[in-house]
This record gives sequence, C-alpha cells and structure tokens, in this order.
Amino acid sequence: MRATNLHAPRDIRLDDVAEPQLHQDGDAIVRVVASCVCGSDLWPYRGVNEVHGPQRIGHEFVGIVEQVGASVSTVTIGDFVIAPFMYSDNTCKLCQRGVHTSCFNGGFWGSIDQDGHMVDGGQGEVVRVPVADGTLVATPSQPSQELVPHLLTLSDVFPTGHHAAVAAGVTTGSTVAVVGDGAVGLCAILAAKRLGAGRIVAMSRHADRQRLAREFGADEVVAERGKEGSGAVRELLDGIGADQVLECVGTSESMKQAIQSARPGGRIGYVGVPHDVELNVPAMFSRNIGIAGGVAPVRAYIDDILPDVLDGSLLPGKVFDLTVPLDQVAQAYQAMDERTAIKSMLTV
Amino acid sequence: MRATNLHAPRDIRLDDVAEPQLHQDGDAIVRVVASCVCGSDLWPYRGVNEVHGPQRIGHEFVGIVEQVGASVSTVTIGDFVIAPFMYSDNTCKLCQRGVHTSCFNGGFWGSIDQDGHMVDGGQGEVVRVPVADGTLVATPSQPSQELVPHLLTLSDVFPTGHHAAVAAGVTTGSTVAVVGDGAVGLCAILAAKRLGAGRIVAMSRHADRQRLAREFGADEVVAERGKEGSGAVRELLDGIGADQVLECVGTSESMKQAIQSARPGGRIGYVGVPHDVELNVPAMFSRNIGIAGGVAPVRAYIDDILPDVLDGSLLPGKVFDLTVPLDQVAQAYQAMDERTAIKSMLTV
Repeated sequence: MRATNLHAPRDIRLDDVAEPQLHQDGDAIVRVVASCVCGSDLWPYRGVNEVHGPQRIGHEFVGIVEQVGASVSTVTIGDFVIAPFMYSDNTCKLCQRGVHTSCFNGGFWGSIDQDGHMVDGGQGEVVRVPVADGTLVATPSQPSQELVPHLLTLSDVFPTGHHAAVAAGVTTGSTVAVVGDGAVGLCAILAAKRLGAGRIVAMSRHADRQRLAREFGADEVVAERGKEGSGAVRELLDGIGADQVLECVGTSESMKQAIQSARPGGRIGYVGVPHDVELNVPAMFSRNIGIAGGVAPVRAYIDDILPDVLDGSLLPGKVFDLTVPLDQVAQAYQAMDERTAIKSMLTV
Repeated sequence: MRATNLHAPRDIRLDDVAEPQLHQDGDAIVRVVASCVCGSDLWPYRGVNEVHGPQRIGHEFVGIVEQVGASVSTVTIGDFVIAPFMYSDNTCKLCQRGVHTSCFNGGFWGSIDQDGHMVDGGQGEVVRVPVADGTLVATPSQPSQELVPHLLTLSDVFPTGHHAAVAAGVTTGSTVAVVGDGAVGLCAILAAKRLGAGRIVAMSRHADRQRLAREFGADEVVAERGKEGSGAVRELLDGIGADQVLECVGTSESMKQAIQSARPGGRIGYVGVPHDVELNVPAMFSRNIGIAGGVAPVRAYIDDILPDVLDGSLLPGKVFDLTVPLDQVAQAYQAMDERTAIKSMLTV
C-alpha cells in the first residue's frame, strides 16, 4: 500500500510501504476514504520540529473497516468509521474522565505502540487501528459523499475548536473572541456559536477567512493585532473584553493577544500546540484570567457532535478549500504552508 | 488615632496619625473592632517587596460604622460591618460579573483613592471606607464576641481559600489536593469541604497545621514535597492525581507541586500572590491542566458565606492562633514571620 512519509523538511512523498496487519485482538484494519493535513503537521514539515529520516505522518482520517481482531465488538467489517487524532481505549480511568488524550493504552498515529509495533500514519491508504473498540466511531449507515468532509473534521479540527470553547467555558450568551483564523480557529467560531455564544469576534486579516468566519457565526471581525487588536475587541465587547478567548495558534504573540483580549475574570481556552509560549502570571493573577485546554480529547466529544453533522445542521467541512488525491499530498502541504489553502483534504 | 505603619523591613510600629474624615458622599468612617495580619503583608515586612518610608498596612478588618456620607444607604451608624480586602462599588460592569477586585471605582486599603485622598490601612483604630455602599457588608445584628474572629476571616482569608476552590471548579465528590498549609491553605481545605469535595489531601509538614487541616476536612495529609509529594497524592487519589489542586503559596516550587499533583484534565485554583512563578506550558498542554484564580474577589462571595458563619456551622476563625492588642502589632508580625503563629488577630 502507499502512505505518506516526511523524509526531511519540505520533502514529503507518497511511498510504497508494507501492508498493515492485525497484531492484537483489539486491532482493526481501516481502508482510508479521506484524510487531511493539519496545521500541526506543518511544524515538522517546516523543520521547526526535528525530522528523523522518513517518518509516517497524518492523524486525521475516515474510512471503511476492512478487518477486525478477535475481540473487537463495537465496529464490524464494512462500517464507515471516524478515527480521532489519537487512539484510546475509551474505558480507562482517564478516558472515563473525558481525557482520552491521556489514555493509559493510547498513543499517536505514526508512532510505535506499547507492544513495539508501528502504528500507521493517517495520510495513507490503509491504517492499523489499535484498541479499535475504544478508538473508532462508526456512523449508523454509509454516509453520502457530501457528508465525508464534514465527518472527516470530527477526527480533529472541529472538536479541537470545540475543546477550546468548552475548556474556556463558552455558554449561552457568552462574549467570545477567537485568536487565529486557521481551520481550528474557524472551527472554534462554529463551536462557540453552537454552544450559544451571544457575540463572537474573530481576529483575522485574510478576506477569505474573514468570510468563512462570518459564515460560521462571527458577528465582528478585527483585523488589528497587538494592543490595537485587543483595544478593538474590548470596544466591541461591552468596553471590557471577552468572557472567553479561544487561542488557536500557539505562539507567544497569540497567547499575549488572547490574555489582553479577555476581560477581568475571563477564561482562555487554548488548543494551539504551544511553541515558546510564556505566560505573564502576575498579569493573569491581578486580572483573574484563567487558562485551560490542551491537546483536545476528540474522542470524548464525537458522540455529542456527530448527530449534528449527520442531520446536516453542522457543516465544519467548509474549512476544506482544497481537495486533491492522495498522490498529490506534496501539493496539499505546499498550499497550506504558503497559506493559499486553509485546509487540504486528501482523497484515496 | 493610631495606625500601623511599616517604616522599613521588619520595622513595624503603631503610630499616632491623623483622624480619618469623610471626603466623599459615598464614604463611611469605621471604628475597627478587630483586624489581622495577612501572609501577603509579610512580603513587604520581609523586604521582598520594596518599602518606601512609613506606609500604612493591613487590609482585613471588621468594625462599627461611626459616620456615613450623604449618599450612603446600605449601612448606617452603629452597624457591625465586614470590609473586604479591597474596596469596590459592587455595581460596575466588572463587579456585576463577580470580579470586584477589578472594580472601576475600587482600590486597595493603605493606598491613594481616585480623588487623591489617602485610604487608611486596616491595622489601625479607624478607617475611611470609600464607596461604602458597595464595600461594606453589615451583619443583621451585633454579633457575639465569639463570632468576631470568624467574621473577620470574611475580609480575606476564608473567601480567598474559597476562591481557589471555586476557580478550580471543586464540586460534589471532587478529589482535591491543597498545596500550602498557611491560613489560606487551611481555609481552602474548609472551603473545599463546604463545596462537597469527596476526598481532600492536605500537603503539610507541621503538626499543628496538620491537626487543623484534618479538623477543617482533610482526609489525608502528605508531608513529602517534590516528586515524592506528588507521587503520594497520586497514590491516594485513584492513582491519577487530584481533580482540583488549590495552590495557596505563590512560589515557583509550590506551583510546580500543584501541576504535578493534578490529574490529566485537572484544574489548579491559585490564590497565592505569584513571586517568580513560571508555568511549564507544554507540560500543562499535553496533560490538559488548566489554571484559574488570582486576587480573590472577596466581596462577591460574602453574601453566600456569611449565613454559615452567623449560624455557627462554619468556623474559619480557628486559623487565628494568636490574638494580641493592636499595640503589640510588631509581635503579631514576628510570630507569623517566624511561623510560631498561623495567623495573628489584632484587637482594638
């Protein structure tokens, strides 16, 4: 089968690799229908994170179950399934508390599992799925072609935006500011709207993203950054700033922007993988600014969100503005790297 | 009248000072019945915070209203009143959102108000109270002598511990660890118990404080610190750590202790004034550890807590293990500095 390998910064290829096999009774083999490129894939792609020779990549995919191990009971051959961006057993003490990303038996796609077997990356044709009962969520029936992009967002990008909103405590009537107009930031807007936010300010400088931000529920768009940006947010939100700020970038600058845009007593939900982020603790302390979030426990949210996607009322798949076949994976990365695409989908 | 001045590190005196006068229609003059020394007073006392000549000090007091300005309507001459550790109007947009410590018309005792008049410190005989309608909370009748210490804790120490618990989200059945066995830490235990925590672990190395921790509701006491300490907390709390950790110290070490003692997905409530605290953001991100809290909006909590003190079911005044007359204020500080007292009360 073919799978994507990152060989070196900006050297990404679809290679012939060994066909995945069942290793454990709880494994399943899934034939990928669609996968996509994540903003976090760009860190190693750009060489910001170290790259060690050819390494499998991709952690967002949907597909059809092709084989199941002897103990698998929640999915069956032929099911259309959504795979969250980490695998997890959905039963351990931490999964029970909704922190599937810290599952005792969980791990990352493209890494080595606890028994020493390679776990495939998501940007390939076939993937071995460990602890398949816990990891995979099957749709009740085969979805239409139109639904596939929206279902694919449940792997990561939409529930990650949702996690920012939940962690920050967005609720009915909340005032919300969203820092970051990438796919996660846009999904955070959609998630905040779905949770009943009363007023949403998107921070964005790009016309195409501003348009989608408004379509997803942003009432206002602020193009300024820094003190001007937070000043504009405060002015729009009752003169005091946002009840919740959703930080969807992960840089020192974006976090500072988030803290400055929150009202005293406000909360920041952060889901951008932090790179050299330092928090000004005394400034947060004096204004009672809280921060919560982290690597999104996507699996915990899918059951709640899936019905809204299936009935067509939630359309997060609009973040995909480029769709290419898997063998054009290099173009998919390049487009996101150069910001000509918000998010790239790969069809198999 | 006499009031406490900090002249230089460890040079604290009761001086003769000018009698306070009403400056604004919203002011009240309060004759202090009891005040006390806060852990945060020790920072300037020890010279960790800069000291500029003689400066008024003290921000926790209860007393009797002696004069009121023309517009004051919620308290009247003769009322027994509790003064939160900051004054606030209780009506502005931020007070309405429960963040009285960020009140547009608020400020600190012992500082200068917005009209340029000195605001007295709390460790004195008489205090001018700005925005008295918002700031002061009167008891329904004159309290007994026995109730005074418990009522005095509502100025700061008990609601500050309560703020840690509320900010962290302590609720029925929560597992809680408390870092810090000072008066605030002990009150945080009592507050967590009052909010329904299912299991509370106190971190303390001092026999007298361990005893009070248990009396206030701690189920277990951990004397170890560092990795041994967090390991012990994890072992006691389901093998995973605490749902909520209440950080009541404010040092880099104590914050690290708090983060290590929280389970993945846990929340830290912090109320210890931070001194050189740095947060390990990637470690928090990967384990979904949130942090909230800050300078406690005491005024927001008094209405809820006061009935429990008045009916004798809540006895936070047990944190006072030294009571001296105001003219022995230097001994009150010395005892806390040398940790021979948990918290010192000053009677006038």
